[in-house]
Amino acid sequence: MKRTSRDIRTANRYEVLRQIIAASPTSRQELAAATGLSLATVATLVGELLDLRMITEVGFEDSAGGRPRGLVAVNASGGALIGVDIAETYVHVELFDLALNVLARADEDMRPGESLPEQVVSHVAAAVGSVVAQAGIEGARVLGVGVSVPGQVDRATGVSEYAPNWNWHDVPLLDLLTEHIAYPLYLDNPLRASAVAELWFGAARGRGDAVVVNLGTGVGAGLVLGGGLHRGVSNSAGEWGHTTIVLDGRLCRCGKHGCVEAYVGASGIMLNLRELSPDSTLLHPEDQTATIAALAEGLRTGDPVAVKAIRDTVKYLGAGVADLVNLFNPEVVVLSSWVAAALGEPLVAEVREAVARHALPRPFAATEIVLSPIPTDPVCLGAATFALEGALQSVGQRNAKRTTPARSRTAPPS
Amino acid sequence: MKRTSRDIRTANRYEVLRQIIAASPTSRQELAAATGLSLATVATLVGELLDLRMITEVGFEDSAGGRPRGLVAVNASGGALIGVDIAETYVHVELFDLALNVLARADEDMRPGESLPEQVVSHVAAAVGSVVAQAGIEGARVLGVGVSVPGQVDRATGVSEYAPNWNWHDVPLLDLLTEHIAYPLYLDNPLRASAVAELWFGAARGRGDAVVVNLGTGVGAGLVLGGGLHRGVSNSAGEWGHTTIVLDGRLCRCGKHGCVEAYVGASGIMLNLRELSPDSTLLHPEDQTATIAALAEGLRTGDPVAVKAIRDTVKYLGAGVADLVNLFNPEVVVLSSWVAAALGEPLVAEVREAVARHALPRPFAATEIVLSPIPTDPVCLGAATFALEGALQSVGQRNAKRTTPARSRTAPPS
Repeated sequence: MKRTSRDIRTANRYEVLRQIIAASPTSRQELAAATGLSLATVATLVGELLDLRMITEVGFEDSAGGRPRGLVAVNASGGALIGVDIAETYVHVELFDLALNVLARADEDMRPGESLPEQVVSHVAAAVGSVVAQAGIEGARVLGVGVSVPGQVDRATGVSEYAPNWNWHDVPLLDLLTEHIAYPLYLDNPLRASAVAELWFGAARGRGDAVVVNLGTGVGAGLVLGGGLHRGVSNSAGEWGHTTIVLDGRLCRCGKHGCVEAYVGASGIMLNLRELSPDSTLLHPEDQTATIAALAEGLRTGDPVAVKAIRDTVKYLGAGVADLVNLFNPEVVVLSSWVAAALGEPLVAEVREAVARHALPRPFAATEIVLSPIPTDPVCLGAATFALEGALQSVGQRNAKRTTPARSRTAPPS
Repeated sequence: MKRTSRDIRTANRYEVLRQIIAASPTSRQELAAATGLSLATVATLVGELLDLRMITEVGFEDSAGGRPRGLVAVNASGGALIGVDIAETYVHVELFDLALNVLARADEDMRPGESLPEQVVSHVAAAVGSVVAQAGIEGARVLGVGVSVPGQVDRATGVSEYAPNWNWHDVPLLDLLTEHIAYPLYLDNPLRASAVAELWFGAARGRGDAVVVNLGTGVGAGLVLGGGLHRGVSNSAGEWGHTTIVLDGRLCRCGKHGCVEAYVGASGIMLNLRELSPDSTLLHPEDQTATIAALAEGLRTGDPVAVKAIRDTVKYLGAGVADLVNLFNPEVVVLSSWVAAALGEPLVAEVREAVARHALPRPFAATEIVLSPIPTDPVCLGAATFALEGALQSVGQRNAKRTTPARSRTAPPS
């Protein structure tokens, strides 16, 4: 979308808080130097964050003879944020303080066949209730709940337009969640949640252009461009999993042929293994998690079938990542989500070699390829960050109340 | 790259001038409404453009009882800009006034085998000399010369890092051009030139996210994201021509297999035709221009071989454009460059149908697919626009002179 002055103010507010979270305590002068914003702009934004109690004054530092400089730090206990990662087989929920430390966790497993929106929503409601109870947080202090749901999401209306694994079409998920959860809700998908987690807290922090490659049951690319999340005109950018890598190739669950996901998603990897060695003991039919775990273990011990199955996968994955390097020319490609976490550095090393073979020399030379450094679930963290961004955006909306009608506190940002 | 405050100021300066060129005469109030910038910011930027003589005051308009509003318009004769399109087989040069009207043109054909940098540079110098002489412009009024050269370009150093058609590696093109051309020079490549032309004057104007697909001898995608050109970290974003569409497929001139360009570049189209009908009279071996012209004529007259050859091409092109739609979720995809111009609307209609088959429904529904509406050579226009942007950027540098050393006037912007 085209950036307006308001977008720029909001982006600057994010940038200042991001910097304070990264380096508390810090001074307005340091923030101006780190963000490239003017001292006057930083002072205004710091004032807003102080008013919100998201940060606090924590004393002064000497400034070599000049006036002592006021220091600010994130006010970790100034509020709580909840991140919800709805995946195909589980719901993870984490509750964070404002420094984005995890205070409480809850998991719900979804049984095969539990695919009705109401079933999924009741798991989410149970897990959210659990983390609030564990943390002993008064409800009033929860600033918001970010919810990541796979597939294509209209965040303005809170509708899950298409979730391939459950064959959902136009499910009004936000409305269903609102019946159980009283906090402000922010809906988006795992591509964007993991990208925003890397942007605020991971390998994309301080980078202008980064691509976060999600390798899970579904695959896709979260895009950080020009220092912010690129959503596209209808919030569906990053559908790398459904770009064509083998024209007329394998059937993908999206109904098309030859998509990247059909070769490098968890099911695609299982199929690569089956084609290589139909009777392999590494293969756990119907259990993606167990199969990927077995392949990871096989990689560690040098099992030749595991090594070959991953190499076969990386033939596709390397070409697909090279496409992203050629198109976006990013500073960093981050491999994220559970398949990447399970296969770890041995996978990354293979991917680097394959990308070197496929990408053009100039963009390849400019790009690092790394595993996500985020130690917890990046999708939960990113979802909670959407809630944080929403709270920061609603500040701007409250300030702007005199000229434009304020929105309902529970509406997601457009 | 990460946006700094200076980048934002420069982008705002572009935006205001773009809007004045689009809708002269106009008032500061209208500019503020059209750009989303504050009236104070617009007033400052208009002041800078007036100082530069790029625009002029042209009277007042009534404002329904309030103070009459000052009107400004582009000062077409306030300077001249030159755009240079170096292609594989020709050099086109156009000289523009500040309203980007073409005042003079010169063409030089390059014979097969003329591939030495010195040969190319002497064609450029001759054509630039010709347009200046034709227009009767005093040298001092030429604000700059933008030069587009195919392949990968380091615009900061003015080096052509790789030009596949001539097998150039690390040619210091800007240094060579400086020996013949005394005006400020700005080097970049046709992908970015045609994208910036669409952004300022074509189908991407006023759009946040647009992809400009260049179909010529080489192919690639110029990226307009968040209302500005996306260059990537080393100015090589947009290499869509070298993304993989058929893993292990046709050999591409880049040395890899299965690239989009190998199927939809002019040579790729000729090969598609040859595979379909080796003895077709449409085929002019060694002459891309004549073959594409014959196919275009065949499309118009319904020649079944021409129709089938284009349909075979669109099988790849549609999948490749769908990949861009899925990844970027743009408002518009613009088909540009000489192959697209020659094949025209019949090609666009086929591409639309094929993209509908390949892309995901949500991003497809949000995307228009159109032919470039720019009636002249978009690459010349875009190259001249780089010179205009350079002149606008050097304003900012002059204003900033007190704190940072001014750069040489002939250095390209970093």
